[in-house]
Amino acid sequence: MILTSNTKILIVGLGVIGGGYAKALTDKGYRVSAITKDEADIDYAYKRGMIEYGTTEVEEALIQKSELIIFALYPTVFIDWIKKYQHLFTKGTLITDVTGVKSSVVYEVQSILREDVEYISHHPMAGRERSGVEYSTPDVFQGANFIITPTMKNTESAKAVCYALAREIGFSKISELTPEEHDSMIAYLSQLTHAIAVTLMRANDAPELEKYTGDSFRDLTRIAKINDAMWSELFLLNKDALLSQMDAFIGSFMKLRGMLEADDKEGLRREMRAATCRRELFDKPTK
Amino acid sequence: MILTSNTKILIVGLGVIGGGYAKALTDKGYRVSAITKDEADIDYAYKRGMIEYGTTEVEEALIQKSELIIFALYPTVFIDWIKKYQHLFTKGTLITDVTGVKSSVVYEVQSILREDVEYISHHPMAGRERSGVEYSTPDVFQGANFIITPTMKNTESAKAVCYALAREIGFSKISELTPEEHDSMIAYLSQLTHAIAVTLMRANDAPELEKYTGDSFRDLTRIAKINDAMWSELFLLNKDALLSQMDAFIGSFMKLRGMLEADDKEGLRREMRAATCRRELFDKPTK
Repeated sequence: MILTSNTKILIVGLGVIGGGYAKALTDKGYRVSAITKDEADIDYAYKRGMIEYGTTEVEEALIQKSELIIFALYPTVFIDWIKKYQHLFTKGTLITDVTGVKSSVVYEVQSILREDVEYISHHPMAGRERSGVEYSTPDVFQGANFIITPTMKNTESAKAVCYALAREIGFSKISELTPEEHDSMIAYLSQLTHAIAVTLMRANDAPELEKYTGDSFRDLTRIAKINDAMWSELFLLNKDALLSQMDAFIGSFMKLRGMLEADDKEGLRREMRAATCRRELFDKPTK
Repeated sequence: MILTSNTKILIVGLGVIGGGYAKALTDKGYRVSAITKDEADIDYAYKRGMIEYGTTEVEEALIQKSELIIFALYPTVFIDWIKKYQHLFTKGTLITDVTGVKSSVVYEVQSILREDVEYISHHPMAGRERSGVEYSTPDVFQGANFIITPTMKNTESAKAVCYALAREIGFSKISELTPEEHDSMIAYLSQLTHAIAVTLMRANDAPELEKYTGDSFRDLTRIAKINDAMWSELFLLNKDALLSQMDAFIGSFMKLRGMLEADDKEGLRREMRAATCRRELFDKPTK
């Protein structure tokens, strides 16, 4: 399949990501339907002009006519959905998902999926610290990174649809990684940072700490407002990679601590200069 | 002394903080002079209407007529300045400073300072990850926290000037802490977070990591762009408090790691919920 303005797109799961995708694609003139569990979220999506059609039921006719189905569910819910409803897909349907861990999802889904339906996975590197469709906005995707994690089972045309989808939604840098590379990278960039933010909220219980805080601490803990159901799942589904990145972090942190303890001012300054220099690379491109 | 629109204010050090103070106070109708080391920064400050008068010289007449002197220098530079030039102060002058560590600065300065001049220290909990007057803006102080660290040597009227100064510049929550309390708090909120940000830039050298990053990682490392000369000084001048907060952080982080290793989903969720709940307190008040 090729992504055109006539492609019938179905989004399963209208949360922050599903809702943002729906709005971005509808705004670009695509025909977007949605299945999600709460009626109120459908109403919200209609009111904001995010979808052409929405339902809380897994409607056979809707699924059959959908050519591109994007799953924006928790990892385990996504896998269960495929097991339960994959018989409803029409031959040739392309399915993709936005889950934040890949090895533990992609291979399982590809192994259980019908042979006449293709599944290619991707990960939008954008989100918000609140959950729910009412917090969704396509703005967070502007200039953000987008990772596709194809396997040997994927076709060039499926990849091309992912690239087109990412561009239409507003992502800037689109990359391909294996599921394993993705998980190692994301353990560092995303799950580790959430573990740090949560820890910063737990390691010091001084009363009224908030009266003394500056923006640095606020920035480092923005993501400590965390959806515990989803993130505990992401942590555990990427356990080995995350443990290994936590250990790498601790190793470097202890090295810095050692320099401080030894009054090694030059060592501290060297680390700080190296950090400053590398951080330049991570600035978000301005569009 | 009392802060009035006629108070002759001198700011020593036109960087991000000194420059921001100068602009905020001038905008409020105060008469602000400045001493700073680069002529170019004086020119910049004139052009932007930040000061009434500026010089790169330690001018005797200027210092003598100044009633409130605010030092916005590195800690060691501030202490050296006092040693070298305190004979120029007029009796009754109030001096204050913005340095980010207190125990190692406040007691030393108070012990060497002339008896007829009062020194009260404070810490504005706001800044920017760039240095230099051209990055200064009073906006960062709006709604920010302001900590005064009085000692037994300080008078109520000096405290009152600090409160007035903070309000005029735009700070929201003004608190008092002992220098020791301040240092422990700030080791956690500020120096520890900078140590974490620097570590995050150093613990994983995967090439092209920036192609895959999301905003979480960007937020946690914004302050990894760090002024190494100033921050190495702040770390070392607050070494014991910072080491102790680094250890508290590692202890909590290892607890979270243990839960992950033990597949303790409920434990992880409990930590995440507690973090989410506490983080609400840290949101910046909107004015």
